[in-house]
Amino acid sequence: MRQSVSLVTLGVSDYDRGKAFYEALGWSVTWEVEETAFFEANGVVLVLWSREKLATDMGVPDEPAGWGGIALAHNVGSCDEVREVIELARSKGGQVTREPAETFYGGYAGVFRDLDGHVWEIAHNPGFGLNDDGSVTLPKPG
Amino acid sequence: MRQSVSLVTLGVSDYDRGKAFYEALGWSVTWEVEETAFFEANGVVLVLWSREKLATDMGVPDEPAGWGGIALAHNVGSCDEVREVIELARSKGGQVTREPAETFYGGYAGVFRDLDGHVWEIAHNPGFGLNDDGSVTLPKPG
Repeated sequence: MRQSVSLVTLGVSDYDRGKAFYEALGWSVTWEVEETAFFEANGVVLVLWSREKLATDMGVPDEPAGWGGIALAHNVGSCDEVREVIELARSKGGQVTREPAETFYGGYAGVFRDLDGHVWEIAHNPGFGLNDDGSVTLPKPG
Repeated sequence: MRQSVSLVTLGVSDYDRGKAFYEALGWSVTWEVEETAFFEANGVVLVLWSREKLATDMGVPDEPAGWGGIALAHNVGSCDEVREVIELARSKGGQVTREPAETFYGGYAGVFRDLDGHVWEIAHNPGFGLNDDGSVTLPKPG
């Protein structure tokens, strides 16, 4: 198995509401078909689709919406940007579960959950390189 | 907010077991620090970390492990590759929740859950371009 993540699909309970939230954060849909929104990001594609349909399609029980143990990170170039994105998400109805603050790894970050509970850490991590497309470069091992 | 997903962190209940599963699938750790494994993929970084620590760090309740409405997709170049990856995952203890078969979107895919229940669709989708690094290229709108 090659080392790649082609798409990340977030299940949403209300498609229009879910899409509007990401658009309000500044994202724009690259391609849309049958109530499925594809957002081209840094090599990986973020997809919004009905949580119910996604559960059926994946063959998993559609348990009550909760936290499934996954967090997405969106790295930015400064502490100011962390605060800006967190305030933007809050103003659009996101739930801020950790206010922006210094982190144990020597960075600065805040966390919000989107309207369906998906977790986003907005992080400034001086220990990682940050590329123009938002991807990070890990430190060299050792 | 820029359109990017820098990292995807999967919470694991047993770090060594979780890491061994991905290594058995053929992934190799790019950087490791304090029981946190970073796998550099196609621009996005996949991270394994204690689910309990991740919950605390994200400020979310650590609900009983279940499905949180997120699916990761790993696209490959052929139906044979879909079957190979699914069989590999099964042989390493992954739970196949959808056997490889033709999909409603005209592709061919199967789905497995890793040892912590995280959902991976292994897909061959002739409607998307597939790049050398495993990223996909979406169709042109319209």
